[in-house]
Amino acid sequence: VPSYRVTLEYDGRDFQGWQAQGPGRRTVQGTLEQALAELDGAPVPVAGAGRTDAGVHAEGQVASFRLGRELEPDLLGRALNGLLPPDVAVREAARTAEGFHARRDARSKVYRYALWNGPLRSPLREGRQHWVRRPLDLEQMRRAARDLEGTHDFASLQSAGSGVISTVRTLFRVELRGEPGGEIELWVEGDGFLRHMVRALAGTLLEVGSARRAAESMAALLAARRRAAAGPTAPAQALTLIRVDY
Amino acid sequence: VPSYRVTLEYDGRDFQGWQAQGPGRRTVQGTLEQALAELDGAPVPVAGAGRTDAGVHAEGQVASFRLGRELEPDLLGRALNGLLPPDVAVREAARTAEGFHARRDARSKVYRYALWNGPLRSPLREGRQHWVRRPLDLEQMRRAARDLEGTHDFASLQSAGSGVISTVRTLFRVELRGEPGGEIELWVEGDGFLRHMVRALAGTLLEVGSARRAAESMAALLAARRRAAAGPTAPAQALTLIRVDY
Repeated sequence: VPSYRVTLEYDGRDFQGWQAQGPGRRTVQGTLEQALAELDGAPVPVAGAGRTDAGVHAEGQVASFRLGRELEPDLLGRALNGLLPPDVAVREAARTAEGFHARRDARSKVYRYALWNGPLRSPLREGRQHWVRRPLDLEQMRRAARDLEGTHDFASLQSAGSGVISTVRTLFRVELRGEPGGEIELWVEGDGFLRHMVRALAGTLLEVGSARRAAESMAALLAARRRAAAGPTAPAQALTLIRVDY
Repeated sequence: VPSYRVTLEYDGRDFQGWQAQGPGRRTVQGTLEQALAELDGAPVPVAGAGRTDAGVHAEGQVASFRLGRELEPDLLGRALNGLLPPDVAVREAARTAEGFHARRDARSKVYRYALWNGPLRSPLREGRQHWVRRPLDLEQMRRAARDLEGTHDFASLQSAGSGVISTVRTLFRVELRGEPGGEIELWVEGDGFLRHMVRALAGTLLEVGSARRAAESMAALLAARRRAAAGPTAPAQALTLIRVDY
């Protein structure tokens, strides 16, 4: 059976997240499956590397699927881009080995959380960056970020309802770029992510940056294994799935 | 009478341009005048430096007006930001001399026209950059751009219906930044702009970059003084009014 993977870019604003949830909800997976069904003439179930939430964007989401007939990858990508709406597009299409699965075979994912730390609301950043008006202490945030790197039980940063068995994950990188008072980016790379994990991590580091939580408290936070021990889930629209590596 | 000027940032997507056009059309001027009327308790007519078209954004539009009562500028800015919708905000507010007029007193304006020259449609650039798929010859575009700098009669780059008397303007800078195949920005600075002038200039330079018009033809184009002698009006959503200088 011809097996494929595509790399997708999308603006998450008008999607109810990645995962198809039945009729009446516009999702990225549902939109892609519809375009593939038109192309292949039969239903095409799709697996996505990351189940991005409603409002979350992607520069490099990866999806895998099988088609009833052979299609040259470049032609597949261009045909899909003709069928997909303006807020989602294929960046790359490739043949894969038959058993390939976009989520199960992923080795690591990179997410970016974008903050606007200026004193004033910025309409052109609306829907892409999260506005934090109070000046942030980046040094304290970087200190806390370091303690989150590595292999830990991240149960404290997981929202209820995911049903995963192990909550142990490895974060290869938790990095803050930028300057206080300007644009700040939180880059997180890991072998896997729990439900709302990057947003809970961002919300927690924002409390550290506002001196409402000690930078040294990350080990205790993780040890608590309770969602209430961490900070709030930061807004979705500032999060982008940048890349998935295999 | 207390006179003020405010610097505005807005996302032009959901506005029918700057200029108030009566009920039923959402414009930036109308939105600002409504917020000012709520604040001042009386109608407040506003003058804008540039009459941006529907879909055009601003990082630094300037508006001037007079209020019935004295208000500390910082307080005025923050109060307006509380009353304005998410897609427009005040970046700066200041007192001005009583006769100040945002458009008549402007010495120069800076516009940026943003292009995406990659081979594939980019959803995250949608509404902000104009996608030009064919590879552009930036050297030829730069050569043509140089010939547009200076004081010229720009009647060939003016859309009908503006009713201005003189079509002579001075462009201090027509600059292309970026690389073919990536993000390219056209920066234009001038003492004044005719209707759709930056967009017609962008459309003309895009024809030069696609070898459909000779880089050496700018002098003849200007001498023709006919809109049909120039290229098409490029799409509005890639244009941003960056700054107005006084």
